Amino acid sequence: MAQNANLEAQIAFLVEVDKLKSVLRRNYAIHADRRENSAEHSWHVALFAMVLAEHSNELVDINRVVRMLVVHDIVEVDAGDTFIYDDAQRESQVFREERAADRLFGLLPEKQGELFRDLWDEFEAAATPEAKFAKAIDRFAAALHNYETHGRGWSENGIKRNRVLAVNEYVRHGSATLWDKIQSLVHSAVKEGFLQS
Amino acid sequence: MAQNANLEAQIAFLVEVDKLKSVLRRNYAIHADRRENSAEHSWHVALFAMVLAEHSNELVDINRVVRMLVVHDIVEVDAGDTFIYDDAQRESQVFREERAADRLFGLLPEKQGELFRDLWDEFEAAATPEAKFAKAIDRFAAALHNYETHGRGWSENGIKRNRVLAVNEYVRHGSATLWDKIQSLVHSAVKEGFLQS
Repeated sequence: MAQNANLEAQIAFLVEVDKLKSVLRRNYAIHADRRENSAEHSWHVALFAMVLAEHSNELVDINRVVRMLVVHDIVEVDAGDTFIYDDAQRESQVFREERAADRLFGLLPEKQGELFRDLWDEFEAAATPEAKFAKAIDRFAAALHNYETHGRGWSENGIKRNRVLAVNEYVRHGSATLWDKIQSLVHSAVKEGFLQS
Repeated sequence: MAQNANLEAQIAFLVEVDKLKSVLRRNYAIHADRRENSAEHSWHVALFAMVLAEHSNELVDINRVVRMLVVHDIVEVDAGDTFIYDDAQRESQVFREERAADRLFGLLPEKQGELFRDLWDEFEAAATPEAKFAKAIDRFAAALHNYETHGRGWSENGIKRNRVLAVNEYVRHGSATLWDKIQSLVHSAVKEGFLQS
């Protein structure tokens, strides 16, 4: 009986977060001529983490990183995607996303909702080795998508070299290797003429 | 040096499988008026597994289930989505998907490619408790999407009640609770007039 009540709450949550498939990011899917949505992005970064685990600075529980990345954007169902280069939007981001987390994880059975909320809070706080690596993966994926689509997300939004480097320098806290790679992608992008210096 | 060679192979794999975002399934996203793609579906079922873990018949390593679901559809990049109700297509499915797995997981560094292949082979063989639960989640998600979109994927393909039950009975091997729920969704769908009996 308790199990069935759980199941109904869990299904309501899973149906509601389907809306993440309609939240569009600023970057483009690499092989499709359209913007990427946050649901398919979440799948992709979970896979990035599994594949790139060896490049974490610190030893991490990669399963926790994967689970963190599966849930990291769920708040966007209510709060929308916040463009990392949009300073004005980023000011209100914490408030909007906290409220979204209250509502969305609140759909789950109480104890389970708390566990999911803990996972998301940990990602946001970016203090544990797992959260640092998850954040690094999230940014690395965005930079790679921009590079692979010839800077489309950057140029459409007037983002230049120094902004890309400033926003992505954070990656070095999770992975020195991925931060090196981003710098080399940025260097190539400028050289190939699709990122303004 | 070995690590950098690994990184280049890993990035090539991650870029290639971005194509999963363009593979369309027969069912519709619940809250968007369009078919679901296999990448966003893969995210959704990874989350289904995390949320519904307690309903597995057997005790499972849920992290392995999640990782399995993140990779379970990657072969569709080459083999396309095979509609579970299409018997002719399903005959050639094994051959097409094995070849796809050879090529795609073969893009990864050798040992890592083998680990990913093992995970996918385990899912396909559906013999371990983890694979049985992952398969149950995959089918449950499809049934729920069809129910929530008023049977759109079923009716467009002429699928009737008994086919739905026959295809989904498999779910009971992974989760008796989810199999019960599917039967109750099917019952409601027939009663509400969007699934033919």
